[in-house]
Amino acid sequence: MAKSKKSGKGITSREENYSEWYTDLVQKAELADYSPVKGCMVIRPRGYAIWERIRDALDAMIKETGHQNAYFPIFIPESFLKKEAEHVEGFAPECAVVTHAGGSELEEPLVVRPTSETIMYDMFGKWIESYRDLPLLINQWANVVRWEMRTRLFLRTCEFLWQEGHTAHETYEEAEAETLVALEMYRKLAEEWMAVPVFTGVKTDAEKFAGALHTYCIEAMMQDGKSLQSGTSHNLGQNFAKGFDVQFQDREGKLAHVWSTSWGVSTRLMGALIMTHSDDKGLVVPPRLAPDQAVLVPIYRSDEEKQGVLDAAAGVCDSLKKAGIRVFVDDRDQYKPGFKYNEWELKGVPLRLELGPRDLKENKVMIARRDTGDKAPASMDGLDKTVAGLLDEIQKNLFDRAAAYRDALTREVDDYEDFKKKIADEGGFAISNWCGEPACETAIKDETKATIRLIPLEKGEATGECVACGKEGKHRAYFARAY
Amino acid sequence: MAKSKKSGKGITSREENYSEWYTDLVQKAELADYSPVKGCMVIRPRGYAIWERIRDALDAMIKETGHQNAYFPIFIPESFLKKEAEHVEGFAPECAVVTHAGGSELEEPLVVRPTSETIMYDMFGKWIESYRDLPLLINQWANVVRWEMRTRLFLRTCEFLWQEGHTAHETYEEAEAETLVALEMYRKLAEEWMAVPVFTGVKTDAEKFAGALHTYCIEAMMQDGKSLQSGTSHNLGQNFAKGFDVQFQDREGKLAHVWSTSWGVSTRLMGALIMTHSDDKGLVVPPRLAPDQAVLVPIYRSDEEKQGVLDAAAGVCDSLKKAGIRVFVDDRDQYKPGFKYNEWELKGVPLRLELGPRDLKENKVMIARRDTGDKAPASMDGLDKTVAGLLDEIQKNLFDRAAAYRDALTREVDDYEDFKKKIADEGGFAISNWCGEPACETAIKDETKATIRLIPLEKGEATGECVACGKEGKHRAYFARAY
Repeated sequence: MAKSKKSGKGITSREENYSEWYTDLVQKAELADYSPVKGCMVIRPRGYAIWERIRDALDAMIKETGHQNAYFPIFIPESFLKKEAEHVEGFAPECAVVTHAGGSELEEPLVVRPTSETIMYDMFGKWIESYRDLPLLINQWANVVRWEMRTRLFLRTCEFLWQEGHTAHETYEEAEAETLVALEMYRKLAEEWMAVPVFTGVKTDAEKFAGALHTYCIEAMMQDGKSLQSGTSHNLGQNFAKGFDVQFQDREGKLAHVWSTSWGVSTRLMGALIMTHSDDKGLVVPPRLAPDQAVLVPIYRSDEEKQGVLDAAAGVCDSLKKAGIRVFVDDRDQYKPGFKYNEWELKGVPLRLELGPRDLKENKVMIARRDTGDKAPASMDGLDKTVAGLLDEIQKNLFDRAAAYRDALTREVDDYEDFKKKIADEGGFAISNWCGEPACETAIKDETKATIRLIPLEKGEATGECVACGKEGKHRAYFARAY
Repeated sequence: MAKSKKSGKGITSREENYSEWYTDLVQKAELADYSPVKGCMVIRPRGYAIWERIRDALDAMIKETGHQNAYFPIFIPESFLKKEAEHVEGFAPECAVVTHAGGSELEEPLVVRPTSETIMYDMFGKWIESYRDLPLLINQWANVVRWEMRTRLFLRTCEFLWQEGHTAHETYEEAEAETLVALEMYRKLAEEWMAVPVFTGVKTDAEKFAGALHTYCIEAMMQDGKSLQSGTSHNLGQNFAKGFDVQFQDREGKLAHVWSTSWGVSTRLMGALIMTHSDDKGLVVPPRLAPDQAVLVPIYRSDEEKQGVLDAAAGVCDSLKKAGIRVFVDDRDQYKPGFKYNEWELKGVPLRLELGPRDLKENKVMIARRDTGDKAPASMDGLDKTVAGLLDEIQKNLFDRAAAYRDALTREVDDYEDFKKKIADEGGFAISNWCGEPACETAIKDETKATIRLIPLEKGEATGECVACGKEGKHRAYFARAY
């Protein structure tokens, strides 16, 4: 027997092995590839074009909310990392270190940034003098490096692309409000653009960012019932301000340390996108993020038919483009229509239009949806509106479908045997009471592989005793196995 | 006596010390700053916003000409660099090297990319099978590192941001045509967006890219008469294809190595922009690239006046925004109008609108141009058209002014004594015959500090004997001292 059953497209089925399905799909759909540098990926054009759209959507929100982009060095003096105790502990084991440059050994090794708090705060200290310079609202799009032993394309790679917001404020309250502004941007990005429903909430101390007072997050559920942390927003308190001596003259003329935040999402979002919507036939992408929203496949048997069909196809394509739809004609002569259908299914084009001589005669075009597989004829009259309407429908259907799937696997569980069984057999989220003790949290993790993904901002208080230890409950938390 | 005379803005005058003027301006206008990592800069929000506009303008052209963006790892195995002999010789001395990662020493050191030919060709070899896969037209926006000893903000930094196009073709001719497509994009970017006039041509062997058959370039002249290489496009022949064994099955079914190109522009363009247009008062930015195209400064003496003026200012601002003009009201209460005028002159806002109670009564607004300093009243009626027209005029004036300045300092010189005098006393370009001998080129450089910036694509043939050695002339070249 073969080790795994792959489809004609070379993709393992989800049922057979979800993890292999994912890796096959990412490579076969030409989203990303392994590079010769262990743990580092190449983001191929089809993957990068989706990432560009995610980036542009978020970048617009970041600017609308008053933040400005900047760029800080990729190298950080090793000593900087050590100025915040929890921070260095969290990141030092993952650092890549430059020891030589320009042909000689450096006096002080340089760390390739795993995140930029330390290098930014050193500059913030130079720029901030008084409360008039606050809030300072900076964002950076950059590559970062965290040396991981076990990597997976997009989900966990030694180098990844991300944005990191870093802000400084006069008060704790303002910093706290900022972390929630960032969290809301991430929720909107996930739900409205990626069609990925997310839960929002706060992390436990065990799961928070190294150096933060507390960390907010968005968590999405993948098709295999595991949770994927998709974005985080940290209230850093005055920890970094004190480490880097970032002080300002306050409204009373006294010196005070700034209150700061940081928040980021990364190319990991590509993993969330893929594992929320795609299927055994290949990639499924929400229309708002699809580089190509529709492909038109011309169908003909003779040279005579060919010219008429191609001319009509060009006309349809033009009129759709005028309506703002991203469409192209696949007029490659060496491939049969069936081959093309397969290819664009694999690569996730939301709509396929088929146009042959008979369609032309009947003034219609056949339209197939990637999300449902439904296929129906549509009149050439008002085709731009029909196509735009279908794209909206697909966007909505993908979100609704994912939300329904997630909600069916999200349930309140108040019995530990039931908890263990549900986590092991079905996956998904268990909403359960927790005593608030890190030791209990660890014990649950050791026994079930489930961690507390978040404590929701509303209804986060316990309704009874801890699901695991039976002591007095403190929080009502979302537990799941996670990526 | 003080070491240097600085203006009230803290900027050395250009006449006194051009180099200090540049560094003062970049920092005072908050475009960039020195970082704690030697040789690496921080690009501040005002600088980054201009860079984003340069990037977006070029990115649109790159996509229009059929290229796709992708992302490759920042790390390159040291052995890769050695696969092309000239390439390693050119770049090895400048490399930053990661020797440790994840807490242990790496088996093979990783070089932080100084350019990505080698890592890309390794992947191209996996992706390209037949002529149907060609041309492969890839572009990457990324940070690169070249360890320089003497650095200057934007012009020469250890880390910089750039785009690098990398393409593979079936034939030499197609690769050659591609290098010229890239060159033309760079010319358009420089002239139409940055308002920086450039000469285009080919480099001599001494000045070409390490590993290329030949290198095309755009060269701009700065206000101090020195040339700045602002973009390069390389025909790489089959050098990298052979080094990385990138072969394809050609139309006859035979295996052949691809022909390839690479081309790039970087944050160095920011230096070209600044040193072409700015003055002793601060930054001058062409309106197409200015993040803020106009600032409206309200003028009032009493609280009574204030409300009326601010309301009117908001109305003007809204109507200009509706016309697509990037405008803001500087309503900061703690500063006087004169202070604001100074600040926005320093920071390079192309137009300043002044609005006071008398202007309001007369239904007009005072408009001051940053490029000429001219100031004149304009009617409130049709103000959006007036402002849009002025922005176009400024864009054109900046280009024309820079072209006139450059052309006055670009002259044919056929006598070596005259050549030496002109280069030393006036700077600019000397167009002179050259014998084609590298030894003669070096001798000229040693004696005059002038190098051959380019041989033009048209009229590049010598008209007489070599200006320096008197031997038979081969090329008519553009000589200049350069950054």
